Amino acid sequence: MRILHVWAHPEPRSLNGSIATAIQKTLTDLGHQVDTSDLYRMKWKPQLDQDDFDVPDSATAFHPEKTSREAFLSGWQSADIETEQRKLVQCDALVLQFPLWWYSMPAIMKGWFERIYAYGFAYGVGEHSDTHWGDRFGEGAMSGKRAMTVVTTGGWESHYSGRGVNGPIEDLLFPIHHGLLFYTGFDVLPPFLVHRTSKVDAECFDDLSHRLNRRLENLFTTPPIPYRPQNGGDYTIPALELRDGFEPGHTGFGIHRTE
Amino acid sequence: MRILHVWAHPEPRSLNGSIATAIQKTLTDLGHQVDTSDLYRMKWKPQLDQDDFDVPDSATAFHPEKTSREAFLSGWQSADIETEQRKLVQCDALVLQFPLWWYSMPAIMKGWFERIYAYGFAYGVGEHSDTHWGDRFGEGAMSGKRAMTVVTTGGWESHYSGRGVNGPIEDLLFPIHHGLLFYTGFDVLPPFLVHRTSKVDAECFDDLSHRLNRRLENLFTTPPIPYRPQNGGDYTIPALELRDGFEPGHTGFGIHRTE
Repeated sequence: MRILHVWAHPEPRSLNGSIATAIQKTLTDLGHQVDTSDLYRMKWKPQLDQDDFDVPDSATAFHPEKTSREAFLSGWQSADIETEQRKLVQCDALVLQFPLWWYSMPAIMKGWFERIYAYGFAYGVGEHSDTHWGDRFGEGAMSGKRAMTVVTTGGWESHYSGRGVNGPIEDLLFPIHHGLLFYTGFDVLPPFLVHRTSKVDAECFDDLSHRLNRRLENLFTTPPIPYRPQNGGDYTIPALELRDGFEPGHTGFGIHRTE
Repeated sequence: MRILHVWAHPEPRSLNGSIATAIQKTLTDLGHQVDTSDLYRMKWKPQLDQDDFDVPDSATAFHPEKTSREAFLSGWQSADIETEQRKLVQCDALVLQFPLWWYSMPAIMKGWFERIYAYGFAYGVGEHSDTHWGDRFGEGAMSGKRAMTVVTTGGWESHYSGRGVNGPIEDLLFPIHHGLLFYTGFDVLPPFLVHRTSKVDAECFDDLSHRLNRRLENLFTTPPIPYRPQNGGDYTIPALELRDGFEPGHTGFGIHRTE
């Protein structure tokens, strides 16, 4: 299979650098074809702006949505955006690796999504009607592909538990898992987490690598997080609220999983 | 009072540009001194990397935490970082304005926090003991200051409701309100939200401006979101889990508010 490994850390001689090397070796040893987007070494431009688009009539106000749609449809996107979109389209699975900085992905990785997730490619696709509100949340350009995040944190596991002060890690990752990956159609696997990074010594790294290898071996068989498809009947349209019959009386991120 | 207005949108001739102008005018009319960080026009560098630090011994591996601490303490930070830190220290309140892109702030704004929130300035401060786990979540360099987010979304209000498909807006903003702002000691006010931006016409903008003006007039009197201070006794230390007596049986972001 073809795997796209996207990762972000400013220092290759870091724990994330070691994890990135391990991921690439394991996937290659498993017989996969591995594409890599090492965002820091690529010097990826993080900010979405008008320079991304070679749109002729630039005297009018720049509109991120409309301009990205026009540029995507007309071939006026910058070359770096087109290259990354192609890698995404060609992959069977995406492995997204990053340190959790301030409870989210690093800015450079957020900017990777902002710039390549064009209108007409990642959003604003499909019919909008009384029964279908765009190809999103379970449908879209990434349908049939899998995604798994590999996330390191400085804090302890308990700090990210259900009652931990940081908030539960699955809720902190919801905007990424559900909002960025499931949105475009990916089947999203449970994350691979490494906590308390400053305490990871050689022995701990061996253990971590073994556990990570098992996850990579099972990349195409692990059951995905059972998020509810938006257009499958569970939500009202166009209000897009979960129907009363499901999880009655409950609110929050958790109700969007069927378990 | 002195207010720092930080905003991010690539096009000044946009709804966010109009809101930014309105915020600056209103705050000035109210007699405040307004500092502005217009991240796109400043061409703010979003990615945290070794170039941020003029640390002498750069042959050793770059470590974001350790290097940022050393640079902060030794005056080896880049000038743009120092300038923004000074603006934060000098302000009485922060108004943080952005369009919600992929369920979070734009990359350029995330990178503003990543680069200026140095170790020793925004985190890694205060005593770590059996009764106090750093000056954070209610204590820290920003204690006594207030913060309010002003957030625009393309989606409908119902899509961001308690049972909306995107997840509740207060949960999507939790990593920002609680994880970035309350973490360093800010009193965080309820956000000012503008939904369905493509439908905002002149009449709607008038109404929006009026409501926003009321919020700005009450910037120093509006009750903040009642997040629980980390070191006030509600959490176990060092596990940092909410004690059994509070919100028994519940998990998630909501338990970190006292209401």
